Amino acid sequence: MNGKMQWLRNKLLSMDLQGMIVSNPVNIRYLTNIKAEGLLLVTRKENIFITDGRYIEDVHNTLTLFDEIVVYDMMGLTIDDYENFFMFCEKVGFEENYVTYAKYKEYMHKFKINSLVETEGMIEKQRMIKDEDEIESIKKACKITDECYTYILNYIKPGMTEKQIAREIDDYYYKHSEGTSFETIVASGENTSKPHAIPTERQIQEKDIITIDMGCKINGYCSDMTRTFFIGEIPNDIKPIYDLVLKNQIQTLNDMKENFNTKLLAKMVDNDFRLNNFDLIHALGHGVGLDIHEAPTISIKSENLLKENMVVTDEPGIYIAGKFGVRIEDTVLIGKGGSEPLTESSKDYIVI
Amino acid sequence: MNGKMQWLRNKLLSMDLQGMIVSNPVNIRYLTNIKAEGLLLVTRKENIFITDGRYIEDVHNTLTLFDEIVVYDMMGLTIDDYENFFMFCEKVGFEENYVTYAKYKEYMHKFKINSLVETEGMIEKQRMIKDEDEIESIKKACKITDECYTYILNYIKPGMTEKQIAREIDDYYYKHSEGTSFETIVASGENTSKPHAIPTERQIQEKDIITIDMGCKINGYCSDMTRTFFIGEIPNDIKPIYDLVLKNQIQTLNDMKENFNTKLLAKMVDNDFRLNNFDLIHALGHGVGLDIHEAPTISIKSENLLKENMVVTDEPGIYIAGKFGVRIEDTVLIGKGGSEPLTESSKDYIVI
Repeated sequence: MNGKMQWLRNKLLSMDLQGMIVSNPVNIRYLTNIKAEGLLLVTRKENIFITDGRYIEDVHNTLTLFDEIVVYDMMGLTIDDYENFFMFCEKVGFEENYVTYAKYKEYMHKFKINSLVETEGMIEKQRMIKDEDEIESIKKACKITDECYTYILNYIKPGMTEKQIAREIDDYYYKHSEGTSFETIVASGENTSKPHAIPTERQIQEKDIITIDMGCKINGYCSDMTRTFFIGEIPNDIKPIYDLVLKNQIQTLNDMKENFNTKLLAKMVDNDFRLNNFDLIHALGHGVGLDIHEAPTISIKSENLLKENMVVTDEPGIYIAGKFGVRIEDTVLIGKGGSEPLTESSKDYIVI
Repeated sequence: MNGKMQWLRNKLLSMDLQGMIVSNPVNIRYLTNIKAEGLLLVTRKENIFITDGRYIEDVHNTLTLFDEIVVYDMMGLTIDDYENFFMFCEKVGFEENYVTYAKYKEYMHKFKINSLVETEGMIEKQRMIKDEDEIESIKKACKITDECYTYILNYIKPGMTEKQIAREIDDYYYKHSEGTSFETIVASGENTSKPHAIPTERQIQEKDIITIDMGCKINGYCSDMTRTFFIGEIPNDIKPIYDLVLKNQIQTLNDMKENFNTKLLAKMVDNDFRLNNFDLIHALGHGVGLDIHEAPTISIKSENLLKENMVVTDEPGIYIAGKFGVRIEDTVLIGKGGSEPLTESSKDYIVI
């Protein structure tokens, strides 16, 4: 059995749970490396993966005897089989943040479980702390993102559309990684005022401000970086806002270390923005791993302590409706005494 | 208020519900055309959309006064605001197939609702029957898919990789539509034995069998088509299986009409496959709309009656582990007396 499955079994023991139903496919991949739809059952006796005909062959190719996971095709399972999996289990854990209310009721009924117990995102919490291999994958994804950014700065010319630039980024990622980790954002001019802008047919013009939010995947692990830059010149009204965002981005980077409170991090940025009559309208950051957005959230609403080997983003932004917006973001590895930005592209003024 | 929101309000009245929380973003888009994260509340007095700073500007641009939807930024809402939305509502509907168990508990607490009532996918059921505009969008997406298939047949040459071909399809869709409706499948040789194959670096060879499963989006609405074809020649062991799959695909198409039972449709194919010592290992088809997979499911496990203006797929397949697979699929518009395939690419033997 691999270390992550062993961790889960120990964790269940310590919580006095006799089993668990793992439904979230990202958690299943994290624990088993299986990339297929299905249910992972941790029962008293064994680890079981229930899938369907579409995935059986792939799953068998992924697993080895060492994994100690028994694979079943759901087509071959009877009502009795389901009832037997958790026989003599008093309390079985489930993922209340992933499982729908309807599925919860179905599990109760199908597996004949006395008590389905909420596990409070314990696998997601474990996923926050990355091991060496995971960090290695994220580092690679960040490096490719830096290289892609360098490439795209050379590529962009006035007259090109946002869509065209986004497509070029996607193509670059396609060639050098497992593809994008989220839908690439290329926003220009007034479109930068939308934090989640979708690339449009708007053409890049002289004096434009451009925001690009981009990331890719390596071994399933994500990178995430945003840069804001300019065409021809930096408009005078944007400069002080760029400076304010960058100052806070760097300040946050400097503060990020083991045991620093995430709420405090966000509060400090929010305070500084407010002093200048702006607001921090979205989270300051989020964990990055197999999911592009995962725990912990760094915002004024969520209290967490940073821990060594967490990987999170640091992404303050200011948006002025209908005019423009500035966001600067790095993916950051948290250490005991400080943090290490894994995306390293320049954050100085860039004018192309 | 638009017709779809009016339908929902009437439906709630008829179910003796005083309100509903709509959480599924696809249902929210269907009802309101809003493409943003948030919650749609149908309350006694008004329709409310709660979103956050990232989307406020976009949502305001999407909606008109005619929509009669009040938009709130969640940052500005107090505990009292949440408790007031459903004040004096005895029973409020929610989407038990979308809402997680944790969110269900949060809604109960936050909105102080006495009784959250399961709505049994009523919006999804309404979505099964497409109106004129929706059919028009799907038809366009299917037409572009046919054109893309013609294009790609001319493009493919031995030596190319599956990934490269998938990328070319994606590029075509990117230029002519809103992009792919799911991850394009290009499988060749033994990879065709996996129904959900992910394109690999495998190079196309002489005597290869190739399966392509592809679709795009227009106005958010999807198309879905699969074709299996050959390089140079059709291997003798594959021919009878291709014939068997195609026979069943056409037979299903001919049987599809108003009031035909979906379970029976799948049963007939399964029976014919079994007579030949094969199995139907996945569903025979599924609804297509804003989601690539939506209600109804056409399988031996689910009983539904086809209705006029449903749009579904017809996609039998046979897979021989480690050797090859054949799947043929059309997107089909159901009519009173028969069905109309919306994807029209040839299903005769194609050898390139």
